[in-house]
Amino acid sequence: MSGIDFVEQNKSYAATFDQGHLEIPPTKNLIILTCIDARIDPASQLGLKLGEAHVIRNAGGVAKDAIRSIVISQRLLGTKEIAVFHHVGCGMLLFETPKLRDIVKGAAPGDAAVASAVDAIDFLEFSNVEEGVRADVEYLKNHPLVLKGSIITGWVYDVTTGKVHKVV
Amino acid sequence: MSGIDFVEQNKSYAATFDQGHLEIPPTKNLIILTCIDARIDPASQLGLKLGEAHVIRNAGGVAKDAIRSIVISQRLLGTKEIAVFHHVGCGMLLFETPKLRDIVKGAAPGDAAVASAVDAIDFLEFSNVEEGVRADVEYLKNHPLVLKGSIITGWVYDVTTGKVHKVV
Repeated sequence: MSGIDFVEQNKSYAATFDQGHLEIPPTKNLIILTCIDARIDPASQLGLKLGEAHVIRNAGGVAKDAIRSIVISQRLLGTKEIAVFHHVGCGMLLFETPKLRDIVKGAAPGDAAVASAVDAIDFLEFSNVEEGVRADVEYLKNHPLVLKGSIITGWVYDVTTGKVHKVV
Repeated sequence: MSGIDFVEQNKSYAATFDQGHLEIPPTKNLIILTCIDARIDPASQLGLKLGEAHVIRNAGGVAKDAIRSIVISQRLLGTKEIAVFHHVGCGMLLFETPKLRDIVKGAAPGDAAVASAVDAIDFLEFSNVEEGVRADVEYLKNHPLVLKGSIITGWVYDVTTGKVHKVV
């Protein structure tokens, strides 16, 4: 039960590492917001080099769950552009919050701490990928804490083809 | 003000893409939780292949801000191991919530919507990287919604050397 040995996993990367000079502000003044999906690798899929962009990832790539990180990124580290990426085949299309709450409560019958904790969470699922992207871009454009004048765009990544397309 | 052209940025990746067969559950049953920092690229730094792990990224790689995503990952897609990575040179060491609230309010004097929105956010900063890792691992081990029996480990990535080390 000791888990994966990430020192071993990291060895070949560390052996040839030559990017220790990079500074903390992203050089493209860019935030990528995307999903946790295992088939997504923003750096390679979007041609981004180390040091260029902040990458926020949560289940779905949902804007509402990213505000804390966006405020820190914009106000302390100068990012001005936000690109929202949702993706084909997203798990957020496959459930609804009441159903997931039932699954969690069903796995711990009678456990009041579990029930109250899960009932407090909106899992922020969506039923259409492109509509989800549009809604999240609108949400960010209208959010009082997102800097006015930010460039905010919305995209879909297709995990079956490796391609991106622009939604808004 | 049209922003970066990600279709162009994605072209060479898409042209040689051959991973369209991957399915949604992460094949290593693994969640990586880490920071949004532009100098972090979890896939290459941790030797992870496409399809192996969910990657959650928020400012700091903070556990408290990752629970929604962790529940979806564990309960719907079968992940059992969570590796928490914080990093040397993290921006979360450089500010405190009251100071960031002042910065945001100072940029929009008299705007009540901005003031109430930012006062509602705990920015979850920490003052020591290794202590932050230990606290987050403990938080996850004790959280009612994290599956009992999960393997939960804590690590630090050094952006100046490219190396990881284990904390707990």
